Amino acid sequence: MVDPRVYEVMSKPIVSHLDPFLFEVMAEISAWLKPVFGTANEFTLAVSGTGTAGMEAAVSNFVEPGSKFAVFTNGYFCDRIAEMGRRHGANTVELKAEWGNVYDPDQARDFIKREKPNVVAFVHAETSTGAFNDPGPICEAAREVGAFVIADCVTSLGTMPINLDAVGIDCAYSGTQKGLGAPPGLSPITVSPKAMEWIKNRKSVNPSWYFDFNLLSGYFGTTRRYHHTAPITMFYALREALALLHDEGLEPRLERHRRNQRAFVAGAEAMGLKMRVAAPHRLMALNTPEVPEGIDDLKARKHMLNNYNIEISGGLGSLLGKVFRIGVMGVSSTKENVLLVLETLEEALREQGYKAPASGKAAAEKTYA
Amino acid sequence: MVDPRVYEVMSKPIVSHLDPFLFEVMAEISAWLKPVFGTANEFTLAVSGTGTAGMEAAVSNFVEPGSKFAVFTNGYFCDRIAEMGRRHGANTVELKAEWGNVYDPDQARDFIKREKPNVVAFVHAETSTGAFNDPGPICEAAREVGAFVIADCVTSLGTMPINLDAVGIDCAYSGTQKGLGAPPGLSPITVSPKAMEWIKNRKSVNPSWYFDFNLLSGYFGTTRRYHHTAPITMFYALREALALLHDEGLEPRLERHRRNQRAFVAGAEAMGLKMRVAAPHRLMALNTPEVPEGIDDLKARKHMLNNYNIEISGGLGSLLGKVFRIGVMGVSSTKENVLLVLETLEEALREQGYKAPASGKAAAEKTYA
Repeated sequence: MVDPRVYEVMSKPIVSHLDPFLFEVMAEISAWLKPVFGTANEFTLAVSGTGTAGMEAAVSNFVEPGSKFAVFTNGYFCDRIAEMGRRHGANTVELKAEWGNVYDPDQARDFIKREKPNVVAFVHAETSTGAFNDPGPICEAAREVGAFVIADCVTSLGTMPINLDAVGIDCAYSGTQKGLGAPPGLSPITVSPKAMEWIKNRKSVNPSWYFDFNLLSGYFGTTRRYHHTAPITMFYALREALALLHDEGLEPRLERHRRNQRAFVAGAEAMGLKMRVAAPHRLMALNTPEVPEGIDDLKARKHMLNNYNIEISGGLGSLLGKVFRIGVMGVSSTKENVLLVLETLEEALREQGYKAPASGKAAAEKTYA
Repeated sequence: MVDPRVYEVMSKPIVSHLDPFLFEVMAEISAWLKPVFGTANEFTLAVSGTGTAGMEAAVSNFVEPGSKFAVFTNGYFCDRIAEMGRRHGANTVELKAEWGNVYDPDQARDFIKREKPNVVAFVHAETSTGAFNDPGPICEAAREVGAFVIADCVTSLGTMPINLDAVGIDCAYSGTQKGLGAPPGLSPITVSPKAMEWIKNRKSVNPSWYFDFNLLSGYFGTTRRYHHTAPITMFYALREALALLHDEGLEPRLERHRRNQRAFVAGAEAMGLKMRVAAPHRLMALNTPEVPEGIDDLKARKHMLNNYNIEISGGLGSLLGKVFRIGVMGVSSTKENVLLVLETLEEALREQGYKAPASGKAAAEKTYA
């Protein structure tokens, strides 16, 4: 869901792409994004495309033909990162883990030390599985071999702490439509000064002109050199979504997500559903309970959509038909929504003969007491 | 300016990027774009980025490392196309003309026959100079040597006839914020079946995953395979802008642009301003009168912006300080606007001691009689 305040600013008159007012909006976006990413990076802005555009911007700026690119692949979106690396001519190596699982820290460290990549990429919060990949061991080993680290934070930005600078991530990107609660259309992104210095001096030219960070820093930076006509309305929306986050406070916002996630899990488990991801590695914004034996997940999802206008997602790839993907994020992360989704999911499963050992709604309600 | 109807739909609730309603919206966009481009191309959609994203999408799909890429460069935006060609590893050759001028048809034909390129690109309506490049001789020669033709129609779509199929253009792209009168954020694009067939079978992989037409046709086509999360709100806006065009009718819309352009030129010339572009090659949406001797164009533009909230642009590149760029397009192409911009421009010039031989407003008004 999107907050009414965000919808409201989207019908405000547009200004030109070089209007001082737009640069004020962009400056506020940059200032408000930094604490959410946990960074002081000057290059903190929004790319004029959706989350995948941010991914392509990151890969195309960091990866050159012949680069060694090490990607942690345990879900749909890291597969996409690896594919982009190959398209940019990188020698792309992958450490695979089962979808829904995470890496053993030692295994992660060994992989990086053995491969000695130029660039490492991982998905901080894997939207396709609900798993959180700990950046600690990855960044530590990358530092040792002198590799840059890219993190996909599409589902973690604004829902979980990122602590970019403290952990040592060089580049992170996200979308506007997950934890920030704006419509899709921009990709918040941030790059460390050290990485920007490297990008400025890299030998091969980025095949992408649209996503070239050197050109983008001319437009968004102090020179304000025309690069492209930014989607003005989306900048209004992102600014307002960040203002809402700023009003709530980052810590209360993250705590709200934690509280509602805890309630959801208590409810799902009380209903007899097994969470696909082990407790320490779960996301705060997206839950992946397994589909019980004998249940048709599509039928259950349609029941919720058609009767209650609640849209939950199914599994992707190797998790197709095996998990539900239930987002509880941004504006939508509320007690009311958690209880409603549990109640309607229980009904949808009951329709197919599933007998829950206990009420999910009641169990969730207790956690708020 | 943007029509209130377009602003209104932008605050409507978003749906998911795979919602049947969104695919209906996309289908309407495709159907309504076709007559405006003058094409029956099945691949007619909107890329999730601004006009420059459309340019990059076109270049990256048509140009491979080692391709011979012939670009007609007589303005800012064709320079950008050539730069993108070089970034994609093409052997990029340019036929240059002075900014504001166009090509001699024979010269254009000779260039293509001599260079025998794989791909030709030109700017249909050059926003930086106000010049219209006739596609006829370019497409004719390209056909002879078997080259694909890309046309930048950013400022012509919805303001001038394009007749894509009749002329033989294989790919054209545009923006939403010019003739269509929506905010910026999407790039309408169309590709001929013959070119799509080539793109499907091209040997090298497109370095861009985000702009890969093969993947985009999976998302926008009948398979509706998830590719990226489309900026839903911008699709609402584009749909509404095209509905407005459809309500008005394409011919009346083009005629409105012609009428207001004719009035503007009559007024500008009555004021003693010389049009940079020769009469047969002028755009219908963007006028480039020369800045008179001794006039500071920035000062004049600031006068109009600060006193009347009217934003006109200055020249780019070799036309810096030498022309005004005055857009009269989309919703803004009205008699009232033409008269107002002439009256206030005259005042801005008078402020700097310029003496107009006659009233521009009066001369323009006469053309409407």
